[in-house]
Amino acid sequence: MGKFIAIGERIHCISPAIKAAMDSKDPAPILKRAKEQLDAGATYLDLNIGPAEKGGEELMAWGVKLLQENFDNVPLALDTANKKAIEAGIKVYNRAKGKPLVNSADAGDRISYIDVAAANDAIAIALCAKSGIPSDNEERQGYCLEMLERGAGLGMEAEDLWFDPLFLVIKGQQDKQIQTLQFISWLSEQGFNSTGGLSNVSNMMPKAVRPIMDSTMVAMAISHGLTSAIVNPCDLRLMEAIKSADIIMNQTLFADSYLEL
Amino acid sequence: MGKFIAIGERIHCISPAIKAAMDSKDPAPILKRAKEQLDAGATYLDLNIGPAEKGGEELMAWGVKLLQENFDNVPLALDTANKKAIEAGIKVYNRAKGKPLVNSADAGDRISYIDVAAANDAIAIALCAKSGIPSDNEERQGYCLEMLERGAGLGMEAEDLWFDPLFLVIKGQQDKQIQTLQFISWLSEQGFNSTGGLSNVSNMMPKAVRPIMDSTMVAMAISHGLTSAIVNPCDLRLMEAIKSADIIMNQTLFADSYLEL
Repeated sequence: MGKFIAIGERIHCISPAIKAAMDSKDPAPILKRAKEQLDAGATYLDLNIGPAEKGGEELMAWGVKLLQENFDNVPLALDTANKKAIEAGIKVYNRAKGKPLVNSADAGDRISYIDVAAANDAIAIALCAKSGIPSDNEERQGYCLEMLERGAGLGMEAEDLWFDPLFLVIKGQQDKQIQTLQFISWLSEQGFNSTGGLSNVSNMMPKAVRPIMDSTMVAMAISHGLTSAIVNPCDLRLMEAIKSADIIMNQTLFADSYLEL
Repeated sequence: MGKFIAIGERIHCISPAIKAAMDSKDPAPILKRAKEQLDAGATYLDLNIGPAEKGGEELMAWGVKLLQENFDNVPLALDTANKKAIEAGIKVYNRAKGKPLVNSADAGDRISYIDVAAANDAIAIALCAKSGIPSDNEERQGYCLEMLERGAGLGMEAEDLWFDPLFLVIKGQQDKQIQTLQFISWLSEQGFNSTGGLSNVSNMMPKAVRPIMDSTMVAMAISHGLTSAIVNPCDLRLMEAIKSADIIMNQTLFADSYLEL
């Protein structure tokens, strides 16, 4: 097993500062957040331009070039509901540090995002859901296998599908958290890669509680075989848990200074 | 599943202040540590009087009465290599808040500690080891079943054996940590209770690192089904991880204030 992969989530058009930078093609705020996340230990950066119905292709290509030129071809997740923008981003993407991630496919309306990944030798994040929340893990497994079959039919390797178990918010779905862990175990037993928006579990909790809950969940999820997550790497406690979990799972070698590495 | 049980480890004769208090039967230092641990969230308190070859019976009985009279019959783990001292402690023990824990049996020289627990309707902590470190989980399972059989033959219920997987130090045994987690899963699948000296994993690590490593390990272990551990409840980060893990495992109901409860 390799080291856990943290995908930095903070270049997201939901942030007013990033939205304004994307609208005006102002590099500074985007480069600042990229540097913060990489310094904190992110491997991939997510570049979320939102629906991007107008100008999405140009924006994604600009963002990909900006980030890769400034940060030694940092690998990226291209995140938008505009498929053409993803294709435009991949066109200018440099693969020296890893394939691009297509964020994201599901087993419903967005299954064709697997086709985009397959056609471009990219990795697809594949949400194990169709419409709404799967009622149990049998349903999740069904969606997983549907997407696997779709990818395989288009010549993809299984390792290029990173399955997302769909982390649910504890407030309202507390009794479903064990299911998520069990599904991660199942994915791991199949040898599949996995990822997901882990901090969703602490959504709507008090701000001071969230890093505590998220770091506990990430430790649990890694011990069940989660191989990656889309997270805020600037959450120090979360990154400390990830680094410690990598030690316990024997995915990185222990050194007294492992938290600084 | 019930709430995770934290057994406070800080009343231990290895501490010079506690050793002196035990030698002179001075209640104050012992009561102080007991209060700190209960305030921090411990359920059981471990009372470790060491080998206690001389005066052990009197000392254990004194300690049990002291703690239970001052803290509303707090349940205790009686921890010593002197079996007669354990029996003397149980003789004065009040069961209002839970059976006494006998700390501890193993499958080797200390198997007769199961007999002590069985003869006194107590719980035995049962270390899944014989002499030295088990080489794999098959060996651990063998010891577990030997001790289960011993207890069953003496009329014990399985729930009164709390199996200790034997947490190993990461420094030198990094590649064995996954085995520990897998063994905890196996214990959980059998429906067995479990406990252990969890902070052993971070032994010999820099002081600042230990709470980070321990809190990560406890989250992982609880997600695999560990039901209890012998810990320092005054390690705030560790207790936060335990409380958060109880929420994720649906063992306590979430409230925004759950960390203060």
